[in-house]
Amino acid sequence: MSSRIERLRELLEEPLLVTNLVNVLYLTGFDSSNAALLVEPARARLFTDFRYIESARAVEGVETVQTKRSLIGWLSENLSGRIGFEADVLPWSFAEQLREGGIELVPRHGLVEQLRAVKDESELDTFRRACAITDRMFERLVSEVKFVGRRERDVAWDITRLYHEEGADEPAFEAIVGSGPTGARPHARAGDKVIEPGELVVIDTGANVGGYVSDYTRTLATGELDGEMREAYDVVLAAQQAGLEAIRAGVAGVEADAAARGVIEESDFAGTFGHGLGHGLGLDVHESPRLSTESADTLAAGNLVTVEPGVYLEGRFGIRIEDDVIVTEDGIENPVRFTKELVTVG
Amino acid sequence: MSSRIERLRELLEEPLLVTNLVNVLYLTGFDSSNAALLVEPARARLFTDFRYIESARAVEGVETVQTKRSLIGWLSENLSGRIGFEADVLPWSFAEQLREGGIELVPRHGLVEQLRAVKDESELDTFRRACAITDRMFERLVSEVKFVGRRERDVAWDITRLYHEEGADEPAFEAIVGSGPTGARPHARAGDKVIEPGELVVIDTGANVGGYVSDYTRTLATGELDGEMREAYDVVLAAQQAGLEAIRAGVAGVEADAAARGVIEESDFAGTFGHGLGHGLGLDVHESPRLSTESADTLAAGNLVTVEPGVYLEGRFGIRIEDDVIVTEDGIENPVRFTKELVTVG
Repeated sequence: MSSRIERLRELLEEPLLVTNLVNVLYLTGFDSSNAALLVEPARARLFTDFRYIESARAVEGVETVQTKRSLIGWLSENLSGRIGFEADVLPWSFAEQLREGGIELVPRHGLVEQLRAVKDESELDTFRRACAITDRMFERLVSEVKFVGRRERDVAWDITRLYHEEGADEPAFEAIVGSGPTGARPHARAGDKVIEPGELVVIDTGANVGGYVSDYTRTLATGELDGEMREAYDVVLAAQQAGLEAIRAGVAGVEADAAARGVIEESDFAGTFGHGLGHGLGLDVHESPRLSTESADTLAAGNLVTVEPGVYLEGRFGIRIEDDVIVTEDGIENPVRFTKELVTVG
Repeated sequence: MSSRIERLRELLEEPLLVTNLVNVLYLTGFDSSNAALLVEPARARLFTDFRYIESARAVEGVETVQTKRSLIGWLSENLSGRIGFEADVLPWSFAEQLREGGIELVPRHGLVEQLRAVKDESELDTFRRACAITDRMFERLVSEVKFVGRRERDVAWDITRLYHEEGADEPAFEAIVGSGPTGARPHARAGDKVIEPGELVVIDTGANVGGYVSDYTRTLATGELDGEMREAYDVVLAAQQAGLEAIRAGVAGVEADAAARGVIEESDFAGTFGHGLGHGLGLDVHESPRLSTESADTLAAGNLVTVEPGVYLEGRFGIRIEDDVIVTEDGIENPVRFTKELVTVG
């Protein structure tokens, strides 16, 4: 962990107050709901309250300081000088409180996130374990679980149960189970809708294993599909393949997005892919870099990104296919094993 | 829902930009990961991106506006004039971006939270359903589930499973199962520690039902306890009773805290109750008002608060007993049915 603090120091022009709790976890291994880390040239101080102080003392390479429950208030009274802060995360009034306490605050953006975007081997190993569990979950989901006649939320529970049985710590997020028209809303939750025969069912789910997450999507069929649905499925699959082939270190997030998007735009489903191609993942489900029409990121070896084009026909159906891949110098490593051929479930 | 927007309007000196997504949900019923609500004197506008726009259009009493995925950037280009913002929630750089876009920003604090702190009858009914499910979960947990010889995380999974079987939408938060020394860390997660005979096991858990949460703690015994453990249990129980008796509309959060804290401070366990007595709950697990030594709140009828004193002996054991109660003009309604007598599990 302390080598991460060392790498962060190299990016700093002044001490940095890290208040994003996932960034604190990344830098120190310390997991709590109330903490901050001040990284200075010669030391790093970890601040937390009574509830977590015993756990904090186990962190190596940092000084531990017990604060009041109102951590920012305590810091405003006890810190001084010129200090950088995580301006994209810290609420406005907390920054104001620190400033009123006499600290000369410097807004900084994405410094720890920049480190987190490039995974080390130990992070990638943990991630591969999350993928292996997600693969097994999907294999069992399509072979053991009944879909037709059950509510989306019942299938979502089976996903939770299968993750537990396969050894995940917990689901990475609440699974999306979007059947028929529900699937046309990319972020609909699993609801009370009963799954019908002849529908497409979007399953977007991931596992949290050792703190790292997977994030897959497969779209399943519940029986015979009409020609348009089959055509749309093939278009999304081709778009995903084009996206996967475009990714390697040095490629811009907009380029990767455009490679997949172009396939959809040239098809009968032009204009129906309304979100970005993908996003980084790791300790969080959404991290840097982004693959989208608005992205300013360039891919680097060690990035971990989703590749998830989709087609959404409002009121009718949606299709999305998503893998998680590791960016390498000359392409990708794709640890996702579960098939992308259209699977029919009962 | 729109009556909530009406009540909010009465508190405003200028239009308010609501960016806290739970506040957006409270005011509109609209649930998403990217939205904002601008409440003006004559209208309310709900902003969201492509992914959620179809759901947003179903909200009554607001105008719906589709924005770019980068919502704050879009708002900075499209809004103007004097606008209040939720300064305790909005990240510093987002406020800066809006200001640079020409908006005259006014920091505002806790306006929607102030409304949310007083529950209406429909909210209380949903909450009582969450309590009934939590009661049934606890009854089954102590009668059906094996503790001794199993890991804390295995018991935590049984809690998740029992909530599902009893009809909860999901657990309100990751259950704490703290056995023996783990229980002395008030916010330890359920881990790999195997539960031993003759230990105290802190179980802190709640259900999410229809968006509203419960939050109970019970401390169970796995066999014969020593005299100090039994004494500590009785002290915590007496402290909780004193806290419950102190609560009614008009009482300060510090007073309620002091009533319970006094019992512990006058006992052999003085100095071991290191957190506040309780907190509001509702759509979130932690809301206004607070019951603590640092609270500036005064209780009002319709508040929903936890009452959860504890004793924590580092390296040895912890005890906490927590109910959720509805504040009334002359006292409380306590919907929690599960026993507070010491229960022994196998």
